[in-house]
Amino acid sequence: MSAPRHLILADGDFGPLTSKTANSIIRFQPDRVVAVLDRQHAGKTAQDILGAGGDIPVVATMQEGLALGANSVLIGIAPIGGQLPDEWRGWLRQALEGGCHIVSGLHTFIGDDPVLAEAARAHGCRIEDLRRPPADLPVSSGRAKTTTALRVLTVGTDCNVGKMTAQLRLVDGLKARGLRTNFVATGQTGIMIEGWGIAVDAVVADFIGGAAEVITLRGAVDADVVLVEGQGSINHPGYSGVTLGLLHGSCPDAMILCHQASRKFIGDYRPEAWLAMPPLSEYVRLYETIAGAVHPSKVIGIALNTFDLDEASARAACEEAARESGLPCTDPVRFDSAPLLEAIASFRRP
Amino acid sequence: MSAPRHLILADGDFGPLTSKTANSIIRFQPDRVVAVLDRQHAGKTAQDILGAGGDIPVVATMQEGLALGANSVLIGIAPIGGQLPDEWRGWLRQALEGGCHIVSGLHTFIGDDPVLAEAARAHGCRIEDLRRPPADLPVSSGRAKTTTALRVLTVGTDCNVGKMTAQLRLVDGLKARGLRTNFVATGQTGIMIEGWGIAVDAVVADFIGGAAEVITLRGAVDADVVLVEGQGSINHPGYSGVTLGLLHGSCPDAMILCHQASRKFIGDYRPEAWLAMPPLSEYVRLYETIAGAVHPSKVIGIALNTFDLDEASARAACEEAARESGLPCTDPVRFDSAPLLEAIASFRRP
Repeated sequence: MSAPRHLILADGDFGPLTSKTANSIIRFQPDRVVAVLDRQHAGKTAQDILGAGGDIPVVATMQEGLALGANSVLIGIAPIGGQLPDEWRGWLRQALEGGCHIVSGLHTFIGDDPVLAEAARAHGCRIEDLRRPPADLPVSSGRAKTTTALRVLTVGTDCNVGKMTAQLRLVDGLKARGLRTNFVATGQTGIMIEGWGIAVDAVVADFIGGAAEVITLRGAVDADVVLVEGQGSINHPGYSGVTLGLLHGSCPDAMILCHQASRKFIGDYRPEAWLAMPPLSEYVRLYETIAGAVHPSKVIGIALNTFDLDEASARAACEEAARESGLPCTDPVRFDSAPLLEAIASFRRP
Repeated sequence: MSAPRHLILADGDFGPLTSKTANSIIRFQPDRVVAVLDRQHAGKTAQDILGAGGDIPVVATMQEGLALGANSVLIGIAPIGGQLPDEWRGWLRQALEGGCHIVSGLHTFIGDDPVLAEAARAHGCRIEDLRRPPADLPVSSGRAKTTTALRVLTVGTDCNVGKMTAQLRLVDGLKARGLRTNFVATGQTGIMIEGWGIAVDAVVADFIGGAAEVITLRGAVDADVVLVEGQGSINHPGYSGVTLGLLHGSCPDAMILCHQASRKFIGDYRPEAWLAMPPLSEYVRLYETIAGAVHPSKVIGIALNTFDLDEASARAACEEAARESGLPCTDPVRFDSAPLLEAIASFRRP
């Protein structure tokens, strides 16, 4: 298609912590976004809501988005379970009838909806379900460990702490140091940005590792460093299986631990099931122990997300995380990425 | 349907280590099996091949099985990746045309094959794809930890070491001690035997834990002990994601570690990717560490599979495993289950 001009659907959920996909597209590809649809914030700008995205407007209706020249509707929230809100089905039909393509990272495949599929066909529009897995994935066998490229995986203390964002901020810096670097997307937002990848959380469970292996091997071609996007957390009650399948399938030599400085509990679950996060040093021990059961791996740095702290608190949080973990630490979105770039560039396999 | 009289398809793979599903049905429900189809062993009996199953014949053709009165064809091998061998498609059509139902645990759903689905419809037969996941699974949140029933999960040093078999051998012994005990099936063979459950390796990856949570909660109703069938191994390069999702979704209070005494390497992969198994004590440490990241859990005993050892070697292997791990150990198929029954019955939550 022509260059995408996205209307991002984030109705009821546009915000710094709630609309992960929307925010990443606005952060990394703002030129492709014409508006955000969220009735509760209509009339404001992305900058007002996120502190990023400049004057991208927030609108209340599909018509306004179409009038602004959208040629694509991108679903920009990731609700738990990934289900499509019923109300949106009508909006998507309206969008297709207006000539827009649809880009979705939901677990519910838009293209499997007979009405929407027929509307897309009738109006010559594409529906891209980015989480739809490829056929014939293998079971992983540890083959990823054979790449000459250094494999670096981001791992996290929770979902939605900045594992993808941290890596995307490192690519240019590594290239500037002369390292041929590829980013390997393992989730729907990374796939939107990078243009290829597999959403490892959407494959049949037996093939999580196999999906990770396939894309790690692909990303390692003609590369010195392959940055594999992490998912979930090793102690997340809902998603740890995806986290470990990805870890054992991609066989990282090195890991970067990602954390949001102000977060103290895992996930959004009901209070009695909340899980208090252990210290970063305990996460380092957990990840190195369980990774090492298949392939030896070291945590070599901390990427700290400090978006909700003032500058002085953010710097203090980085210093405290470095002290507690004994590892280099920075917020690669806000501060200099050099500590993490240096940790990767100087890493040597044992 | 009337009581099932299965012809078990295990062509080319009938053997003690290769046809896991076939062997378990023959072991636990021999009265439901009329024959096994495997051309390479035709003319022999199940007893000849497995050392179990008595005079259940091995036949070379679908016709022979139908002539013996089969009213169901049960797919009895679990090839890596779960794909349906092409040749079998013709046999299954022949079976449906002969009035047989089909029971399958493959990842490839037989009912999705248009030709076979039509043949089933035309002949009034059912196709049961036991790995097809239910709709609308939740993301797990740690709710399983709220059951009053004691939750016991089998965990393993590899696939196919006897995690399901060990538990099925414990159910009656626990009931005899006055403990209301339910077995929770998490794989296709367990579902065939128990009649309900979810194949957690076949759900979309984000919902492994949620599937485990749903069935653990169901199994805990009106029970004192719920025995959750384990899957894979925490250091299996292909399946560890399923193992951990199941572990964190089911929140076991106690674990029984299952191992095949003569096995030294994980899986069937190409030699350079083989993984040497660490000692049992290291598995105990791995499982307790990673389980404890969500809910505290102890390994309370070892179930040792000694099927390929002579009696003296088998007893010596149990003693050595108990010494190395510091835990009670038995082969619950071959010897007295009492050490494991006692470990469960005497366990108290911390």
